[in-house]
Amino acid sequence: MTTVFGELDHVLLMAPGPSPVAPNVLKAMSIPTLGHLDPDCIKVMDAMQEQLRAVCKTKNAVTFPISGTGSAGMEATFVNLVERGDDVLIVNNGVFCSRMVEVANRLGAQVDVVECPWGQPIDPAAVKAMLDKKHYKILAAVHAETSTGINNPIAAIGELVKNSDTLYLVDSVAGLGGVDMRVDEWGIDAFYSGSQKCLSVPPGLAPASFSDAAMEAIAKRKTKVPNWYMDVSLIRKYWEGSPRVYHHTAPINMYYALHQALDNLLTEGLDAAFARHTAMHQRLSDGLAKLGFTPFVKEGGAPQINLYLPPAGVDANALRACLRKEHKIEVAGGLGDLAGKVIRVGVMGEGAREEPIDRLINAVKACLNK
Amino acid sequence: MTTVFGELDHVLLMAPGPSPVAPNVLKAMSIPTLGHLDPDCIKVMDAMQEQLRAVCKTKNAVTFPISGTGSAGMEATFVNLVERGDDVLIVNNGVFCSRMVEVANRLGAQVDVVECPWGQPIDPAAVKAMLDKKHYKILAAVHAETSTGINNPIAAIGELVKNSDTLYLVDSVAGLGGVDMRVDEWGIDAFYSGSQKCLSVPPGLAPASFSDAAMEAIAKRKTKVPNWYMDVSLIRKYWEGSPRVYHHTAPINMYYALHQALDNLLTEGLDAAFARHTAMHQRLSDGLAKLGFTPFVKEGGAPQINLYLPPAGVDANALRACLRKEHKIEVAGGLGDLAGKVIRVGVMGEGAREEPIDRLINAVKACLNK
Repeated sequence: MTTVFGELDHVLLMAPGPSPVAPNVLKAMSIPTLGHLDPDCIKVMDAMQEQLRAVCKTKNAVTFPISGTGSAGMEATFVNLVERGDDVLIVNNGVFCSRMVEVANRLGAQVDVVECPWGQPIDPAAVKAMLDKKHYKILAAVHAETSTGINNPIAAIGELVKNSDTLYLVDSVAGLGGVDMRVDEWGIDAFYSGSQKCLSVPPGLAPASFSDAAMEAIAKRKTKVPNWYMDVSLIRKYWEGSPRVYHHTAPINMYYALHQALDNLLTEGLDAAFARHTAMHQRLSDGLAKLGFTPFVKEGGAPQINLYLPPAGVDANALRACLRKEHKIEVAGGLGDLAGKVIRVGVMGEGAREEPIDRLINAVKACLNK
Repeated sequence: MTTVFGELDHVLLMAPGPSPVAPNVLKAMSIPTLGHLDPDCIKVMDAMQEQLRAVCKTKNAVTFPISGTGSAGMEATFVNLVERGDDVLIVNNGVFCSRMVEVANRLGAQVDVVECPWGQPIDPAAVKAMLDKKHYKILAAVHAETSTGINNPIAAIGELVKNSDTLYLVDSVAGLGGVDMRVDEWGIDAFYSGSQKCLSVPPGLAPASFSDAAMEAIAKRKTKVPNWYMDVSLIRKYWEGSPRVYHHTAPINMYYALHQALDNLLTEGLDAAFARHTAMHQRLSDGLAKLGFTPFVKEGGAPQINLYLPPAGVDANALRACLRKEHKIEVAGGLGDLAGKVIRVGVMGEGAREEPIDRLINAVKACLNK
């Protein structure tokens, strides 16, 4: 037998996730595994919870990574909060918002959708108009739309339900660590992210946080959460109290990676990291503008997710193929209506640095001149 | 800021999971991350699927790891097969069988339970008696009960539903790789395991397999699977066909680890690995017998999961504390009625070797003589 490892390229990951992983994070992943109830495992968990609270700007007790990828975070937040027949309002301006609609529908929610144009930030007035007409148990929105390169105004949308009993559910899979996120100040009740975007950890964990109001709503459910694996009230007992109550076996090596990456981020400082993402986004846009590329998003663009229309006569998919084949660089293509029309470039975590950005710009130039 | 890594012990993992991880598997985990649609990522996935089919002894097209721990495998198999009101028969002789009951109930199944004494293998006659009385959509059993140290007669139970339309769902979280598993020959329709037991991969993946009959039953559902993240019909499109259809971002570094560990296992040969587990189980039992320990399971005991009653006057929990504190070795305690009464020792994967077994026996001796 043999493995395929010898055949793998070392690819510079400049798609909007997964992002490049720092060497010390890859190294942390290979620390020998610990048992899920070992006191040393609990040390890692406790330290990681404090880091996550700092990065999410929350005091929420229930703050930990769900054992799955970012989409598991989506599933976990909805399945804990939604009971069949619950009214849910979802703001839709991209692929991941549409996924929320699908997840909530499958759980039996009564879903209403505020349809907003893709490629533009959500207009809070459109959300308010819906909220004025009907009472919702949950209002859900995506912070950073990976499909279109938009950061939505999560704080302004949150204001609309702040003094109500409507729970505010927010996806920041592609935002956390790259742009500001204030779970408590913005009134977010159920929050999730993904490890593989601006946190620069391999995919496999979904940092999540639930407010006291969300946990009270879960405690008042008439039916049990129809997903034992993701029942946060059970998982919570594993993350706090003494003794810890076993739920499922913690993916400890992924915890090591997240713990190290969060340390990298907090050592740099959140504001410095956000400024770096913005500066590197600008460096990339300037470099590509000189090569004739136009940003797809005119206003409210996310620094960490960049969609560009190539210059006339350049095929986006051929360019991507050249970058991957000749230069071992991954960038993503457009989704939905944008397929084949744009390139999507991540400026995320370890990818938001001068060396990878310049390498990408130079490689694009070389591909155009071929 | 700082990490806690400097404070962590290197612990020899001799509980029934997680098991020790081979150095080349830890090293594989730190191979640079690849994008989830990169052709090189697909190479890893294709190779891993072939390996999994070989280890599970199946030709099932739908064979891949669920992106979560072993319990995610349980959730995934049940949530795909069960619709509200479906009749499900679960054979119960341990903690993980009881978990199945909870998972199925939460999904709205009509669950009947064959209660069997804990610490004894299931008697197929008891299952037959239930099957004779009522038609079930699903019959579910646990292969290796981590809580009691039993390997259940999965082949004999499977015979009971082989020529029927009842789907056979089997948990081999703690069996796969340590004892024989024949998914096709034994008529298993929905199968799952965990990475962190006899496969000796860190926790975080649940290898799973679905028969054509299971996939047909899923295709005939009247309602969508109420769990988007674990919908195998969607995930399947990511594992086969061209182009691959994105579902969720694959936890690629965990795939590296599983790919390497499966290569280790298949290079050794399955039969050789099973024989090694049996021999190391015997070595451990002989060594502990000399120190006055008695096996808890008299017959049908699993080589990979060993429960021992300590000699008179020895407190099981004090012994465990001594092993962990003085010798940096983890063994588990009893669950449920067995709490404080037994030690549970894993002879799993990389733990099923002379060096760790002898180190454990010597450490137990040292603790008894303290």
